[in-house]
Amino acid sequence: MAEEVSNKQVILKNYVRGFPKESDMEMRTTSLKLKLPEGSCGAILVKNLYLSCDPYMRSRMSKLEGHYTESFTPGSPIGGFGVSEVLDSSHSNFKKGDLLWGLTGWEEHSIITAPETLFKIEHTDVPLSYYTGILGMPGLTAYSGFFEICSPKKGDNVFISAASGAVGQLVGQFAKLAGCYVVGSAGTKEKVDLLKQKFGFDEGFNYKDEQDLEAVLKRYFPDGIDIYFENVGGKMLDAVLLNMRLHSRIAVCGMISQYNLEQSEGVQNLFCLITKRIRMEGFLVFDYYHLYPKFLQMILPLIKEGKIVYVEDIAEGLENGPSALIGLFSGRNVGKQVVAVTRG
Amino acid sequence: MAEEVSNKQVILKNYVRGFPKESDMEMRTTSLKLKLPEGSCGAILVKNLYLSCDPYMRSRMSKLEGHYTESFTPGSPIGGFGVSEVLDSSHSNFKKGDLLWGLTGWEEHSIITAPETLFKIEHTDVPLSYYTGILGMPGLTAYSGFFEICSPKKGDNVFISAASGAVGQLVGQFAKLAGCYVVGSAGTKEKVDLLKQKFGFDEGFNYKDEQDLEAVLKRYFPDGIDIYFENVGGKMLDAVLLNMRLHSRIAVCGMISQYNLEQSEGVQNLFCLITKRIRMEGFLVFDYYHLYPKFLQMILPLIKEGKIVYVEDIAEGLENGPSALIGLFSGRNVGKQVVAVTRG
Repeated sequence: MAEEVSNKQVILKNYVRGFPKESDMEMRTTSLKLKLPEGSCGAILVKNLYLSCDPYMRSRMSKLEGHYTESFTPGSPIGGFGVSEVLDSSHSNFKKGDLLWGLTGWEEHSIITAPETLFKIEHTDVPLSYYTGILGMPGLTAYSGFFEICSPKKGDNVFISAASGAVGQLVGQFAKLAGCYVVGSAGTKEKVDLLKQKFGFDEGFNYKDEQDLEAVLKRYFPDGIDIYFENVGGKMLDAVLLNMRLHSRIAVCGMISQYNLEQSEGVQNLFCLITKRIRMEGFLVFDYYHLYPKFLQMILPLIKEGKIVYVEDIAEGLENGPSALIGLFSGRNVGKQVVAVTRG
Repeated sequence: MAEEVSNKQVILKNYVRGFPKESDMEMRTTSLKLKLPEGSCGAILVKNLYLSCDPYMRSRMSKLEGHYTESFTPGSPIGGFGVSEVLDSSHSNFKKGDLLWGLTGWEEHSIITAPETLFKIEHTDVPLSYYTGILGMPGLTAYSGFFEICSPKKGDNVFISAASGAVGQLVGQFAKLAGCYVVGSAGTKEKVDLLKQKFGFDEGFNYKDEQDLEAVLKRYFPDGIDIYFENVGGKMLDAVLLNMRLHSRIAVCGMISQYNLEQSEGVQNLFCLITKRIRMEGFLVFDYYHLYPKFLQMILPLIKEGKIVYVEDIAEGLENGPSALIGLFSGRNVGKQVVAVTRG
C-alpha cells in the first residue's frame, strides 16, 4: 500500500476585493497517498519545493470573467508557478525523480493533471529556486518583453519601474548588456541601492520620495526616454508619457499599482502617443514560451560568468506563503519573492 | 508698378482656453502688392483658393511648448493646409500659375517663405478642394495610419470613431477594400446614414444615442475588434479597450473629444493592453510624406472609377472660415470641412 502523508495547503477563503490580506487565506492540512490512483493517464504527482509569488496572482483571487487566467476557487488551494520534484508519473514525458517548473498548487504535494504547462529542469548547477525567477516565468518575461517588444538599440535611454522586482532587475541588466543608459524606480532606499550597486543601473530613485514624478524623470532623462518597461501603471505612466522621446516604445508588462483598486486611476496623457509617435504594447509571457530554449542558452552562461545576478527574497515554509504573497502589493519583498516549501 | 490689392485675413485675437469661439478670431483687411519684393529668395506669393479645417489646429490656438507644431501668433493670421495658386515665385521649383497644396495662411493671399512644405498639384481632373482632404493631408493620414500602423488583414473587424470625418470616411473605405468588416461611430443620424449608404460601412451608430458604449460595441463586434482607428479618445477609448481582441491594434490618429478640455479625461482600461496583447501606436502624417506619390498612384484611379467617394462640407468665403473651424469641435460639419476662399 502507498504511503499516506499529510499535505499542508494554502486555501483561498473567499474572493478578494481591494488589498488582499493574509486572512483572505488559511492553512489546511489534508492527507494524500504518495501514489497516483490506478489507471491515471497523463497526471503526475509532485512534491513542491519552491513556490513563486507573482503580482498577476492578485487577479486570480477575484472573480474573473473573460480574463487570460482563471480565478482561484474559494475553499481550494491557490496555485501558481513553482519548482517541483516528480514522485509518481502516468505521463510519458516525466518520470519519478525529475525536477520541473511550471504551474502547481500552493501545497506540499500536488497532483498535476495538465502537465503540458510544465518544463523539465535540465540544468541543476544553479539554485533550483531560480526556476521560479530568472530561469522561469519572470526571466522569460523580462527577455521577451525587452528584446521582442522594446526594439532596443545601443545608446537607448531605458526606464524601468518596479525595477528591483523579479522582472525589473533582469530587464535593467539586459539593457545594460545591450549598451543602454538605464534608470529604475523602486520603493525603498535599500532597493534603489541594489539597482545601482548590484544590478549596474546607471541611476535609480525612490518614487515614494518624489513629489513630482515628471520632474524627476526629466532630471534623469534630459533628452527623454526611448524605452519604458512598464510594471506599475497609474501616475507613473502619466509622468513617463510626458518624458518619452519621438518614436519611443513602451512595453506594458504589468500595472501593479492598480491591481487592488476598485477603479483604476485614469491615465490622462495618452495624447503624447500621437505627438511623440509612441508605440505602447502589452504582452504576456505565454506567447513567448517557444523562446524558452533560446533564452536559457543565452542566460545560463551569463549567470555562470557572473554577468547577470539575481536577488531573491525567500520565505521559509508554506505557512509563511500568504504573508509573502500579500507583501508583494506593499513592496515588502526585496527582489524576487519565493516561498521555500521544503529545501529539496 | 505692381498692383496693390486688399487682403482679407483671419486673425487670432488671443490664445484660447477651453472650447474655441468664433469671437476668438476676427477679420482684418490689409493690403498687399501682388509681386514679391525685389531680391526675394525662395519665397512664393500665392492666392489661396481653399483652406482646410482640421482638428489639430485647435492645439495651435493655445500657447504650446515642446509640441510637434507651433502656436499661432495672437494678432496675426492663423494658418493651415490649403490649396493655392502661385502668383509670383522666387523659388526654382514653383512658377506663376502652378497649383499647390500645403501650409499657407488664412487670408486671401499669402507669402510663403517655407515652400518645402508644399506639394505641386499635377492632377487637376478632380475637384481642387480634394487636395485639402482625400488627396491632401487627411488622405495621406488615413492611408498611412491604416496601412502602416493597423496591419490589416482580410476579415479583420475594424472600428472607426469620428467615422464620417475627413480621415474616418477614407479609413472605412480602405478597410472595406481590404476585405474587412467595418463599423463606424458618428454624432448624428445623418452622418451614420452616410457611413452606411455612401461609404459602404457594414454598420454605424450615433454615439450620442448610446448610454453604454461598451454594450453597443459588443453588439456590433460579438467577436471583438481587431483594429481600432482612434480619432476621439476619452470614454470611447475606454469602451473600445474592453472590446478589443487578442493581438489587436489601435492606431491613435486623434483625440478630438479631449482637445478643448482643461484636463483630459482619464483612461482607465489600459490593463487590457496586457491581457489582450494590444499594440497601441500613435502616428503623425508628417512621418509619411515620402509615401505621398505611392498614395496618389493608388487613390486617383479609385476616385475616377468611383470606388472611393469623398464627402466635403464647403463653407463659402473666408469670412465664414472661423465658424467652419469652430464647428469641427461640435461636430457640425458633415464630411471634410473646407473653406472656399475664392472659387479658383
